[in-house]
Amino acid sequence: MMQSRAYLDHNASMPLRHSSRAAMIEALDVVGNPSSVHAEGRKVRQLVDGARRDVAALVGVDPARLVFTSGATEGAMTLLTPHWTMGRAPLLFSHLYVGATEHSCVSGGGRFAPEQMTVIPVGPNGVIDLAALPALLEAHDHAEGLPLVAVQAANNETGVVQPIEEITKIVRGAKGTLIVDAVQAAGRLPIALDAGFGDYLILSAHKIGGPKGVGAIASSSDVLMPAVLIRGGGQERGHRGGTENVSGIVGFGAAAREALGELGEMPQLAERRKELEAEMRQRVPDVVIHGAAAAQRLPNTIFFTIPGMKTETAQIAFDLAGIALSAGSACSSGKVGASKVLSAMHWDGDGALRVSFGLATSADDLARFTNALGTLAARRAGRQAA
Amino acid sequence: MMQSRAYLDHNASMPLRHSSRAAMIEALDVVGNPSSVHAEGRKVRQLVDGARRDVAALVGVDPARLVFTSGATEGAMTLLTPHWTMGRAPLLFSHLYVGATEHSCVSGGGRFAPEQMTVIPVGPNGVIDLAALPALLEAHDHAEGLPLVAVQAANNETGVVQPIEEITKIVRGAKGTLIVDAVQAAGRLPIALDAGFGDYLILSAHKIGGPKGVGAIASSSDVLMPAVLIRGGGQERGHRGGTENVSGIVGFGAAAREALGELGEMPQLAERRKELEAEMRQRVPDVVIHGAAAAQRLPNTIFFTIPGMKTETAQIAFDLAGIALSAGSACSSGKVGASKVLSAMHWDGDGALRVSFGLATSADDLARFTNALGTLAARRAGRQAA
Repeated sequence: MMQSRAYLDHNASMPLRHSSRAAMIEALDVVGNPSSVHAEGRKVRQLVDGARRDVAALVGVDPARLVFTSGATEGAMTLLTPHWTMGRAPLLFSHLYVGATEHSCVSGGGRFAPEQMTVIPVGPNGVIDLAALPALLEAHDHAEGLPLVAVQAANNETGVVQPIEEITKIVRGAKGTLIVDAVQAAGRLPIALDAGFGDYLILSAHKIGGPKGVGAIASSSDVLMPAVLIRGGGQERGHRGGTENVSGIVGFGAAAREALGELGEMPQLAERRKELEAEMRQRVPDVVIHGAAAAQRLPNTIFFTIPGMKTETAQIAFDLAGIALSAGSACSSGKVGASKVLSAMHWDGDGALRVSFGLATSADDLARFTNALGTLAARRAGRQAA
Repeated sequence: MMQSRAYLDHNASMPLRHSSRAAMIEALDVVGNPSSVHAEGRKVRQLVDGARRDVAALVGVDPARLVFTSGATEGAMTLLTPHWTMGRAPLLFSHLYVGATEHSCVSGGGRFAPEQMTVIPVGPNGVIDLAALPALLEAHDHAEGLPLVAVQAANNETGVVQPIEEITKIVRGAKGTLIVDAVQAAGRLPIALDAGFGDYLILSAHKIGGPKGVGAIASSSDVLMPAVLIRGGGQERGHRGGTENVSGIVGFGAAAREALGELGEMPQLAERRKELEAEMRQRVPDVVIHGAAAAQRLPNTIFFTIPGMKTETAQIAFDLAGIALSAGSACSSGKVGASKVLSAMHWDGDGALRVSFGLATSADDLARFTNALGTLAARRAGRQAA
């Protein structure tokens, strides 16, 4: 039997909220296909559309402009394409500009060829270089097509928050369109797409306490949409075919509703993060907290390096001590490699570990982490003395 | 409150099995991302791989060659592409041949352009014309690339079963590859991909009593795979990116396990279908049962026309009588149009309605349907007399 453990890997997958779990189970018991015209079908359709309103409310967008997907990766593949339509007319984005610290589902470029892509540099603090971006867009050849830009709202590893409203203005000024990966930011920062927080959003349910395998894209435009990635029977107003993941979508809606209600508690969560960082610095005075120089980081994320300690060894030691944390992104089939995010931030020191938690995380769990950190640091001191 | 109803629309979406529901809820309570290396992540990974074995067993394929998707539509978009790889080498399919009665997710051609597609005709019985297919493939220009063929195992509207083993031999003889949409056949017919039931399969969980929003593709080859549709962090051995829909996959596995155990009861289900058809003919002597001349139909599906009666009117009348059935495919955003399946079968008479059920359907529910059918027929007789 597994002993009680401290799960500090919310950025990989947040535990399912009770509200989301209950809503999913209720939806599982409703029979029917949401495209069917009989009473059963119409009832399932209502569940999907109710969830659409809840998810849309979390990110400040008209529900009519939210399309459910199977997750953020599908969302990124859908939005990152040269081929779009403006109503019925085709519209071409000739080049994709992506932030240097994007998640792999965005940095892969979706349906763009590698030669159609340029990386936007970040500073050592992890923030997009706001001088470099206008220069890149100025050099863009509008005769070839429009520029498409993709920047994440908050980094999954460091928690560094990007100035999205400012970037939106720069991109729109260059007649470009901004895709914002809001996967880690949703529910942790206020987001209002329709008030200028980018032009399109990518969302994932399981990062806000909903189920795995569901996500959404949201658009600030009624008419400008990407070439459909998954064509089928006309579901999601023709933007995404296939029978909807009804229970997953309903779980996403419930999680979004609860996350919206919790936004006001995020400053307290940020306080807890700061206290934890102070405790870490006391236990390990030379600990490096990545992105600490950024103007803003997520309230729940600490990406840190203990100089002289191997990441894999430390991660296994934490795991054995009953603490689940991660060496950066989980989305790489369990491989532990050098963090591309840290390389982009010009860090060439030792690898890093990520602690990520939530409002429901207990003080005991965080204390368990700092105690284990102390033990590891003492072991390092012993090894260095030997 | 909704009164008790007879749900006879299993081909649109089968009610969730109790075993699937229970497995899903258990999986919802397991915290973690299957790509994480800590204990939580490893436990989630085990759940996914257990489900993979169960789904693979249902269709007779090595679990290592089964890739989970968000449903059949994604599966079709993944497999229906000109661009494949044989190991690391690219391989081109220059033309797609699709059966005339395929589901919209296949007849749309996936990532093929319309000019790269040819329709394989069916006879009035709905079965692929086995003389036309070799002739089409003989005319294929192998200098341009290989031929890709897509034929469904059983039709969603009529239940007509195609001779897949025979078609597999024809396609392989022409150095082609056969994609089989086994969505409606899985769990209702024995399927053994590795024994020559096509080369690739498309599967959907909610048609066998699992949840909506999950599916799979299965391949008979280790090395020949389509260009990845959803690229991400290397999940599903690189064939499908994105965090896995864990609870959905687990529910799919449980449904597949139970469906496999029920295959032996399908002859009894076919007997019930025949009895129901006899009762229908007694109530409405001029009823037309589509595909009745085919060698084999699904044991649970009846697609029928009452001459002189409008499909929409009849469907609404059944719905008001508490009976959920459908006018063909549900996957068209609730639109009721002429059935493309019937047109392909050279039928130009009145529209049709589909009754589809399962082992769990009660005799009462079927009697309720035949009674309502009788009432409708009497109303038609009265109208014709007036």
